[in-house]
Amino acid sequence: MPTLRAALLQSQGRPGSVPANLELLDAEAARAAAAGAGLLVAPELFLTGYGVGEALPRLAREARDAEAEVDRIAARHRIALACGLPEEDGGALYNAARLTGPDGRPLARYRKTHLWGPYEHTWFTPGDTALVQARLHGLTVGLLICYDVEFPEMVRAHALAGTDLLLVPTALPAPGRFIAETLVPARAFESQLHIAYANRTGHEGGFDFVGLSTLAGPAGHPGPRAGAAPELLVGDVDTDALAASRTANTYLADRRPGLYPADRQDALPGQEAPAP
Amino acid sequence: MPTLRAALLQSQGRPGSVPANLELLDAEAARAAAAGAGLLVAPELFLTGYGVGEALPRLAREARDAEAEVDRIAARHRIALACGLPEEDGGALYNAARLTGPDGRPLARYRKTHLWGPYEHTWFTPGDTALVQARLHGLTVGLLICYDVEFPEMVRAHALAGTDLLLVPTALPAPGRFIAETLVPARAFESQLHIAYANRTGHEGGFDFVGLSTLAGPAGHPGPRAGAAPELLVGDVDTDALAASRTANTYLADRRPGLYPADRQDALPGQEAPAP
Repeated sequence: MPTLRAALLQSQGRPGSVPANLELLDAEAARAAAAGAGLLVAPELFLTGYGVGEALPRLAREARDAEAEVDRIAARHRIALACGLPEEDGGALYNAARLTGPDGRPLARYRKTHLWGPYEHTWFTPGDTALVQARLHGLTVGLLICYDVEFPEMVRAHALAGTDLLLVPTALPAPGRFIAETLVPARAFESQLHIAYANRTGHEGGFDFVGLSTLAGPAGHPGPRAGAAPELLVGDVDTDALAASRTANTYLADRRPGLYPADRQDALPGQEAPAP
Repeated sequence: MPTLRAALLQSQGRPGSVPANLELLDAEAARAAAAGAGLLVAPELFLTGYGVGEALPRLAREARDAEAEVDRIAARHRIALACGLPEEDGGALYNAARLTGPDGRPLARYRKTHLWGPYEHTWFTPGDTALVQARLHGLTVGLLICYDVEFPEMVRAHALAGTDLLLVPTALPAPGRFIAETLVPARAFESQLHIAYANRTGHEGGFDFVGLSTLAGPAGHPGPRAGAAPELLVGDVDTDALAASRTANTYLADRRPGLYPADRQDALPGQEAPAP
């Protein structure tokens, strides 16, 4: 079974400049490939910046024109690329992420389904497709964006649909350490998969991003983790270890979906509490 | 709004002796009440021991006869008691927990719905009621047992049904630190409620219990936590702080249940991934 080396680009890029971010992506893709990585994950809205506000619609048009160049960067360095960018479609603006294969072929596009806070609700329309997957280097990979991964339902849906590795471009500001350090590792453990959580750094538009990018795994011990500064974090997704973990830890098999009322509109049949 | 002081009894009790465990419960209820606690939570199968194997059916009968004494202990010290015990009903043995009010009145009974590992599957039948709640000191409390709380679906169901405080008698053996230290705090944060996680200690029947009982809260920072040794852990559930946390952290309101396919048998309507 394959082992995939993943590189996480923890960076603020250059907010407001698509050409500068393409240049940075090209340089980091070269570094990641030289480190043996088959995949590079860049943060949320990496191509344009996150806190750029009213420039987003214009930058989204620039980002659309830059998609072909992102694909060329992937092909040039023979490395898969997951990258956040705004996307305009039918007059709506989405907070999106694209995955390009190591041959430069677009593999998947995801639109953030859980928008976070007033800023994102001002600028973006939420996506309506929870589950976006692709095959990459023998693995099933999935795409989520930042706040999405904080919902256990979203990660569970991926695990049940066979996702091995979730790619999560992120823009996690302070105070959010608990999310990076506790919630994301819990997600990987409880749903028995890997999570590549690539965050922004620095100050931008009133946000103070915490870094702490991590490659969290299913085994319940900390994976590689970045600090607060820009960093190219590299870690391995070992599919043999993932399979072994799923055999030892039977969360997915031990679920009792008939008992979970959360997402059912109808009353629960046949459940009656025993007398105290 | 009320603040409830909760005491968590981290203890191995005396495995195999219901009378000795009643005596211990009485003494610890007195200590907890003296510390100002309105609630004492004892571990999983506290009344009989956890790893007592083939003695369980006999001890379950002793435990049934002891329920009235548990209720008298609660009334004597004017403290609510949540306590794990085996329960025989219709020829089936359940891994159960009871909640008694501070007036000695039985308030709720829960049967573990997610049995853990070969040992529990050998001796117990799983319960079929996910959601057991009661009102206590102005709070809505719920009951889960150990492995149950590791399933995000279970805690989410409680949060959506209004549970403020989950009482979780536990028997977490090594290697399980990650569950006590990371998974349980993540549950409290992601579903915006408190979790009183009271674990066993010591060696028993091949199990090596890790302690680490904790009162986890919604704010995303560590709550009171025990070490590995027996301890009466005391902490406060501040309902004003809980309400403030739910206002600041809108996980429950931001869910998009229509998007979560995990527990639906039918295909998802209207979800189609955007073209890559």
